[in-house]
Amino acid sequence: MTSMITPLTRESVQPLVPPFSPIARAEGDDAIGGFLALAARADVISLAGGLPAPEGFPANDVAEATKWVLTHHAAEALQYSSAQGLLTWRQAIAQWETERGVPTGPENVLVVSGSQQALDLMGRAFCSPGDKLLVESPTYVGALEAFRLSGADCVSVPSDAEGLDPEALNTSHQGARFLYVMPTFQNPTGKTLSLERREALAQKARELDLWLLEDSPYQELYYDKAPPPSLRSFAPERTITLGSMSKVLSPGLRLGYILGPAHVIKALTRVKGAMDLHSSTFTQWVGTRLVSSGFMDKHLPRVRALYRHKADVLLAALESHREALQDATWTKPEGGMFIWMTLPDGMDATRLLERCLAAPQKVGFVPGTHFFADRGHANTVRLSFVTVSDDAINQAVETLVACYQQP
Amino acid sequence: MTSMITPLTRESVQPLVPPFSPIARAEGDDAIGGFLALAARADVISLAGGLPAPEGFPANDVAEATKWVLTHHAAEALQYSSAQGLLTWRQAIAQWETERGVPTGPENVLVVSGSQQALDLMGRAFCSPGDKLLVESPTYVGALEAFRLSGADCVSVPSDAEGLDPEALNTSHQGARFLYVMPTFQNPTGKTLSLERREALAQKARELDLWLLEDSPYQELYYDKAPPPSLRSFAPERTITLGSMSKVLSPGLRLGYILGPAHVIKALTRVKGAMDLHSSTFTQWVGTRLVSSGFMDKHLPRVRALYRHKADVLLAALESHREALQDATWTKPEGGMFIWMTLPDGMDATRLLERCLAAPQKVGFVPGTHFFADRGHANTVRLSFVTVSDDAINQAVETLVACYQQP
Repeated sequence: MTSMITPLTRESVQPLVPPFSPIARAEGDDAIGGFLALAARADVISLAGGLPAPEGFPANDVAEATKWVLTHHAAEALQYSSAQGLLTWRQAIAQWETERGVPTGPENVLVVSGSQQALDLMGRAFCSPGDKLLVESPTYVGALEAFRLSGADCVSVPSDAEGLDPEALNTSHQGARFLYVMPTFQNPTGKTLSLERREALAQKARELDLWLLEDSPYQELYYDKAPPPSLRSFAPERTITLGSMSKVLSPGLRLGYILGPAHVIKALTRVKGAMDLHSSTFTQWVGTRLVSSGFMDKHLPRVRALYRHKADVLLAALESHREALQDATWTKPEGGMFIWMTLPDGMDATRLLERCLAAPQKVGFVPGTHFFADRGHANTVRLSFVTVSDDAINQAVETLVACYQQP
Repeated sequence: MTSMITPLTRESVQPLVPPFSPIARAEGDDAIGGFLALAARADVISLAGGLPAPEGFPANDVAEATKWVLTHHAAEALQYSSAQGLLTWRQAIAQWETERGVPTGPENVLVVSGSQQALDLMGRAFCSPGDKLLVESPTYVGALEAFRLSGADCVSVPSDAEGLDPEALNTSHQGARFLYVMPTFQNPTGKTLSLERREALAQKARELDLWLLEDSPYQELYYDKAPPPSLRSFAPERTITLGSMSKVLSPGLRLGYILGPAHVIKALTRVKGAMDLHSSTFTQWVGTRLVSSGFMDKHLPRVRALYRHKADVLLAALESHREALQDATWTKPEGGMFIWMTLPDGMDATRLLERCLAAPQKVGFVPGTHFFADRGHANTVRLSFVTVSDDAINQAVETLVACYQQP
């Protein structure tokens, strides 16, 4: 049998419709991708992204840690490793958590490739299609996208000015696979649950036999004082907590982790292994070197000061236009990367965004409706500020106010 | 309201059964984890692992590339990036593939965190629970584990001495979501599909309207001559190919990729974004620097020579015991990391393994039954050799032969 390979050009391949599952057929609106694209446009001052400030990236320290790892442990750092994650890295994370008030051992830690993977893993490990999950209202849009992959039905639990209201939880919520909560400097609202609400939430969870999924990527980014202890400290037997180095070190390393009871971590580890064998051995080694060396103790105060400064600039700019914005309200976060603005009833944030993107100095932000499982709330806005220069923050607020005042 | 945090100890948390989905409840046998644990035991000569040889890891080159990345592009390399992967990295991969005979652009590439993640992604994007998938017999055990997460039913297609037999595909296989094939230096058998079989397989796929999932982690690890062109070159409109830097550069970096028609890549990218936002920006930058600098042209010949040498040592050791092993047969791979041994009918490889692990010089390997979707085939063995010293290979074969001969 003789053979000739048919000459191909890239254009010669005619699209053939693949037998996709419902997951891949779902068109979705790729909200996160859209925000990131908006944030990357050179002619737009973007208050849209949820990106950490690159000034906070410790490039030299990462370079030194990397060099050390490749000098002393190259054969291990470049090799396959275990699904649960490097023992030394899990020990470092466990010590970090223990120092923050929740006794934690390496058996309570599963290493993942960023918190987003943890959300997907939790959706899969707890939900079959049609199962009910509880989420805050509003909640992190990436969580909604991850949970949808499992086919779960996300049901909103009402929030008020102080965040999730434990009193809103009742027997109608029983049977949900878990309640997803970001208690500290929440994305998108910037709100933080009080110690009293955390205690009440733990109590409610016990009464209703609910598991809690606590997402805590921002907890170390406080401006003045540390936030209350984690939900996990109040209900360790039924809380799974997600942590991340993305906001305090670098998102490009994809260093996330899951904390929980050892038997839950063991079951999640099996699923994680089938998903991608394990997270990068190399970046786990770099993370271990940085965290074990005490680097974070020097680094975190710098990041906190930077973020507090940016929040101050944006809040001052908004305050200077208090009269023009008199029918709007906004949160005053005590940490993190987000301010949540509520426009007057009937004002459409998506319409406002269109105006801002057509203004002489273009400005982008995320309309708040994307953060609600049930949409609506057209008059809400998320403002992110940590990657923007002081001048640009002030210019952005000028545009925002001018467009707000247009009839 | 006053609050007291209940003092906790790690032991005070009583296990509470979580509302797991079937995925997390499935106990499974964690075959991969078991093999890796076996491979790591200091007192065992392990022919069990599928790990690449650390002598092949270019630690100095990775260190130089990393230093360059952090000197010139730290703010980008440590930041979030796009779900599809860095454009420069996708361009480097596209050029690599184009040079190997399949015209490929960056729009045909999706970056993933190792091939295992691609297997999971493909299972989810193509299969709902109960859907039928076709796999080789035997096939890569990690693929079986990934596909099971989607709830798919893996159906074996028979192989013969030359690998997957295209003639075995018939109308009973229609309606399967795809056929998973590792055509080159297959894990576990080491077999390579001939050019004629690749052409025939592409033809059969068109006749039966089957999509092909081609897994090619080993294609560059040939001992003497390059393998035939990829399946994708014969049926680009219906083939999705998985590639990996794990075996040719380093598995610890988790640099895998998916190649396929642009519209399929686009749909898979949306799912990938919800799964983990994107793969490590940092390791993609390091990969780009290494591959774009022409490093692989120097590096691959060294790895190929190392692997050929190890295969030669194991094959020579087995051959020197030809008489004792006269009722056994084994493959003679032309590349890759595996030799597949078929013991006499009635001899149980799991039993043989137990003997080998109890011998004065303990030896580990993987019983072949784990690589069959329908199990059985108790008389088969996978031998992996690239991480073992020449002396240890010879000692391992001594043990193997001694145990083989025990009544």
